[in-house]
Amino acid sequence: MAEPSGAGYSIPLDDPGLDIAAGEEFLQEVFQILLEEGVRKSTDVTQKVCDWKEPQELRELLDLELRNDGEGREQLLQRCRDVLRFSVRTGHPRFFNQLFSGLDHHALAGRFLTETLNTSPYTYEMAPVLVLMEEQVLAKLRELVGWSSGDGIFAPGGSISNMLAMNVARFRRFPESRSRGNWDLPRLGLFASQESHYSILKGAALLGIGTDNVHLVRTDKRGKMIPEELEKEIQRVKAEVRTGCTPMSPKPLKLPNASPGSEPLFVCATSGTTVLGAFDPLDAIADICAHHGLWLHVDGLLQRCHGVGASYLFQRDKFYDVSLDTGDKSPQCGRRADGLKLWILWKAVGSQGLGQRVERAFSATRYLLEQVKRREGFQLVMEPEFINLCFWFIPPSLRGQESSPEFWDKLGKVAPAIKEKMIRRGSMMVGYQPHGSHVNFFRQIITNPAVTRHDLDFFLDEIQELGWDL
Amino acid sequence: MAEPSGAGYSIPLDDPGLDIAAGEEFLQEVFQILLEEGVRKSTDVTQKVCDWKEPQELRELLDLELRNDGEGREQLLQRCRDVLRFSVRTGHPRFFNQLFSGLDHHALAGRFLTETLNTSPYTYEMAPVLVLMEEQVLAKLRELVGWSSGDGIFAPGGSISNMLAMNVARFRRFPESRSRGNWDLPRLGLFASQESHYSILKGAALLGIGTDNVHLVRTDKRGKMIPEELEKEIQRVKAEVRTGCTPMSPKPLKLPNASPGSEPLFVCATSGTTVLGAFDPLDAIADICAHHGLWLHVDGLLQRCHGVGASYLFQRDKFYDVSLDTGDKSPQCGRRADGLKLWILWKAVGSQGLGQRVERAFSATRYLLEQVKRREGFQLVMEPEFINLCFWFIPPSLRGQESSPEFWDKLGKVAPAIKEKMIRRGSMMVGYQPHGSHVNFFRQIITNPAVTRHDLDFFLDEIQELGWDL
Repeated sequence: MAEPSGAGYSIPLDDPGLDIAAGEEFLQEVFQILLEEGVRKSTDVTQKVCDWKEPQELRELLDLELRNDGEGREQLLQRCRDVLRFSVRTGHPRFFNQLFSGLDHHALAGRFLTETLNTSPYTYEMAPVLVLMEEQVLAKLRELVGWSSGDGIFAPGGSISNMLAMNVARFRRFPESRSRGNWDLPRLGLFASQESHYSILKGAALLGIGTDNVHLVRTDKRGKMIPEELEKEIQRVKAEVRTGCTPMSPKPLKLPNASPGSEPLFVCATSGTTVLGAFDPLDAIADICAHHGLWLHVDGLLQRCHGVGASYLFQRDKFYDVSLDTGDKSPQCGRRADGLKLWILWKAVGSQGLGQRVERAFSATRYLLEQVKRREGFQLVMEPEFINLCFWFIPPSLRGQESSPEFWDKLGKVAPAIKEKMIRRGSMMVGYQPHGSHVNFFRQIITNPAVTRHDLDFFLDEIQELGWDL
Repeated sequence: MAEPSGAGYSIPLDDPGLDIAAGEEFLQEVFQILLEEGVRKSTDVTQKVCDWKEPQELRELLDLELRNDGEGREQLLQRCRDVLRFSVRTGHPRFFNQLFSGLDHHALAGRFLTETLNTSPYTYEMAPVLVLMEEQVLAKLRELVGWSSGDGIFAPGGSISNMLAMNVARFRRFPESRSRGNWDLPRLGLFASQESHYSILKGAALLGIGTDNVHLVRTDKRGKMIPEELEKEIQRVKAEVRTGCTPMSPKPLKLPNASPGSEPLFVCATSGTTVLGAFDPLDAIADICAHHGLWLHVDGLLQRCHGVGASYLFQRDKFYDVSLDTGDKSPQCGRRADGLKLWILWKAVGSQGLGQRVERAFSATRYLLEQVKRREGFQLVMEPEFINLCFWFIPPSLRGQESSPEFWDKLGKVAPAIKEKMIRRGSMMVGYQPHGSHVNFFRQIITNPAVTRHDLDFFLDEIQELGWDL
């Protein structure tokens, strides 16, 4: 056995190299800190949402540097407190900055359980409970969209899910692409609305398809894909194809300087766009996809597509049903058992409870909508279709000047100014963005079931107060 | 606002839609269960490593079905106990099945903290502490490999890291590939050893490069890439190129029926192969890459490569330094704050403590190596180079028959038979696999610092006992 220079290998092996009792005590203490500073304060409306520090100030406060020697228990516990203190409280009833706002105790318990198990659901042998649980959660999710059969896997986030969907579509139409790459295929065309998530572009880049081959289809003023525009765009792209290749004979006969053209493959329809919360008209889009033989994006996966069959992990001579070894379906090897969190939450509140949360989100949006319409100085960007409520706050100094040439320029600076004030005060957090021809506006999405009417009144009062003098 | 049919939106908003006090009590109780059943039993050598059940039996025991109504607290707590009871104890000192064996209390505390924070380190605004922490951990990791500058990001696992590395290499050489896809590029050639991780093949498929364009370079009998073979393979692939394209003018002039050829792009050198733990000779490979202008795989990333600049997430009109908004470097949008776990562990034990763990792993391997050599019936596959120890157990019935024609066939059935017995008994878990011309053998990798000499003696005793009558 080769010995890298400097390593002595003289570590005695008689006792464990960890102090297990001290470790358990540490965990116990960290948990109490988590419960008090992380969970209780995070859900307590009288606490700040964030305690803003400039990066340099925070670097000095935290002493992040990693050194040669370890630190003692009290210091480590203080570090845990500091991490919680200076982090954003995403579970707070007045944190509205991202879609994942809120803290559900059952779901958090599920994550603690997942982390304690510290395994990867790639084989039944390694994660018997988690593999069966994932099977059940996926079946239940398919049932929600009306499917009685199918396959699936949890991916680490929506962006990667979208990429996998594109990859499955390519593999299904051109199975040889897996071994031969894109070169023998016609140039592929992907279609998504102008409002689709940016991961479609990232995915096209990663998959070697290229962002130029993503055709962004025009939307109506509510942000929905216009089916007639999709049809036109498909026709336009098809008409450009002058390479003589067809899906059945994918080897293009390329003439020098011939226009490459492209072959429509995949349509991504969006159900709930990021900013406006628009739903593309699925039935009409599905008809167009069926007519042209295009893949309409769903989150199914296929084992043959991502699988390569690594013998050291996926032995076929095991003594149990190896169809439960799901690892080869994913482009990942190890992955977190993301089904457990959802499973325990579902068990805790039932389909009924989950449904009520959805209804509550609509109720909250409707209440806020009424208030926005009623209050002076608030102006809707458009009537909401879903739970995204987009609006401007017009400070008194700008009111009545809607027709002046600088009005929109000035209004576009209002949301960032209010946002800065709210973060420095730590009272709440909400996102803003420009969109198309619209200057910066706030986007409110209430998914946290802990949010009350009082929080929604506060939300509007606070914007009004912070923006009053602008 | 449109109302989907059936939804009433009559949920009152006066009170929170969650019982926060009950949630905290539930978390407190789950934590005690986790500590007792998940942590303490997982690290207790007198407990079973797993409690094996057949899939159908386990489905019945667990009642995984998700129903319309939620369940009461006692039942949910029992479910948490059941999940822990029937899962594999990856923290157990006799769990050797995967590389991530062991349970470190500080690291687990770090994960609990990460989950409680429930945020995504894509912007400083959303995760001030975590973004700065990740910056520090990445700088320290670069320091370990001798780099004083650079960039980086945590990816969800090694497979996706490998794919990102390939993507960075392609973008660096052919920046236009991001917008135009692979079609205008020469066919690209990737090189990795026969022993490289299977994610290289998966990545080539995903990136539209194709598994046929991954050239697996021959290894020596220890599993190391042979630099002369790499050179030969590069030369061979280059000689096939008859398309007239160069990296500077990437548009190939393809003649009908011309051999496509391919343009060498990327070499993946492996430091510690999966089965044998072999280290490719980096210096010699680096020289070859420099000579041919090929990318030698490192885990760096580049913002320009994966970024698309989504205005709703990465506003440029923020009031702080937006270079800290790291989200646009990754192909993911939201991602977990994976740096925190490592940071807290590093703070707890220091670089010194981490170093000792590495030394302890070598000590354990050396001890086990001596025992394997000393014990009758155990046979090394080869002398270990790293902490992977590969060996066969030869049952008495097969000893002395090494020259018989059926010997290797019969020996190949021994490891699976022992593995089945060990899982049914629940006494320990270790992996086996065939490799090249070698029939199934055990691969032992001891990374858990809690493993003692007593556990290693037990490991060999148990294999001997379970395999004695085969």
